[in-house]
Amino acid sequence: MAKLDNKKIAILAADGFEESELFSPLEALKEAGAKVDIVSIKGGSVQGFRHTVPLRDIRVDKVIKDADINDYDGVLIPGGLFNPDALRRDEKILAFVRDAFAKNLPVAAICHGPQVLISAGVVEGRKMTGFKAIQIDLQNAGAEVSDSEVVVDDGLVTSRNPDDLPAFNKKMVEEFCEGRHKGQKKSVAA
Amino acid sequence: MAKLDNKKIAILAADGFEESELFSPLEALKEAGAKVDIVSIKGGSVQGFRHTVPLRDIRVDKVIKDADINDYDGVLIPGGLFNPDALRRDEKILAFVRDAFAKNLPVAAICHGPQVLISAGVVEGRKMTGFKAIQIDLQNAGAEVSDSEVVVDDGLVTSRNPDDLPAFNKKMVEEFCEGRHKGQKKSVAA
Repeated sequence: MAKLDNKKIAILAADGFEESELFSPLEALKEAGAKVDIVSIKGGSVQGFRHTVPLRDIRVDKVIKDADINDYDGVLIPGGLFNPDALRRDEKILAFVRDAFAKNLPVAAICHGPQVLISAGVVEGRKMTGFKAIQIDLQNAGAEVSDSEVVVDDGLVTSRNPDDLPAFNKKMVEEFCEGRHKGQKKSVAA
Repeated sequence: MAKLDNKKIAILAADGFEESELFSPLEALKEAGAKVDIVSIKGGSVQGFRHTVPLRDIRVDKVIKDADINDYDGVLIPGGLFNPDALRRDEKILAFVRDAFAKNLPVAAICHGPQVLISAGVVEGRKMTGFKAIQIDLQNAGAEVSDSEVVVDDGLVTSRNPDDLPAFNKKMVEEFCEGRHKGQKKSVAA
C-alpha cells in the first residue's frame, strides 16, 4: 500500500500558476497513491507559466463553489504570481483554506502560494517560509519566517521557489501521510 | 510655463510592468513639462504587459547603481506583478526609495507598485491604497488603507488599478508640482 492511498488532496490553482510548482508536487502525490483534485475559481482549465512564458495547462476538476473541505485530506497551493494573486481575492477560496486549518488538515504552499494564507488570516505565530519577495509580508502578518528550503510546522509545509521542490515534495508527502495536525487550528482567527 | 517644468521624475520599472500604468502617467508627466528617466535594475529595455500579454517595452535611461536621488524631484512606481516583485528584491532600488522618502520627495505608486514601499519599510502610519490583493499586506505593514481610487497623504499618492489612472495622474502631477513634503520623511525607519 502506498503512503497516500485513500487520501485525497485539493490543489488550489488559477491561471498563472508556476508550472513546475503544480506538476512536480502533483506527480509526487500520485506516486504516493493520493487522489488529487485541481480546485479553481472557475471551470475549464488553468494555465501554467514559467515566469512569463506559458507552458502546460491543466483541467479543473472542481469549481470552488462546489468544493467541500470534508472531501479532502490536505491542501496544496503552488506559486506563480498571477495564481495566488487571483486566489487570494476570492472569498470562497479563502473560506476553503480557513476550513482546512480549522479541521487541522495539513496544508502545503510554495513560492508565492503562502500569500493566499496571509489573506486567509492563518499565518500568525506559524513557522514558515516563502518566496524572497514576500517574506516581509509573511513577517508583517505575524509569521516566524526562515529563509530555508522547506519549513514544517505541525502540518504546515512551506518552501521558497522551484529549486526547493525536492525538499518540499518530500515533507509535503510526509505531512499528508501523517494526517490531521492539532497545530493547524491554532492559527485560525476566531 | 508648464506645471512640472524643471522637474525630473524617476520611474522605477522592471520587466513585467503593467503597460498602461507606466505609459499613461509618463504621458501625463511629459504633458506637464517634466523630464523623466526610466530607472531599472539592469540596462537595455523593460517589457510591459497587460495582465499576461506582452505589449510595449521601454528603454531604460538609468541603471539603479548609477542613479542618484539628488537628480530627481519625485518617484513613480507602476504596477504589474513581475515588476514590483523584482524591484522589491533589489537592495539598491529599496535604498533609492528610502532616500526619496528621507528627502521628503513626493512618491506615487499604483496597483502592486506599493509592494516596493512595503519592502522599503516606508508605509507605517501612512494613508494609502493599492491593488485589492495587496491591501492586507499594506495593512499588516502598518498603513492605514482605504479602498479609494486615489489616496494622497502628504506627498504620497497611491491608487488601486488601471481604472484609477485618471485620478492617479491628476494627483501625482499636483504632488510633484508642490515639491517636497515634510510628511514623507516621518515614515522612514531610523
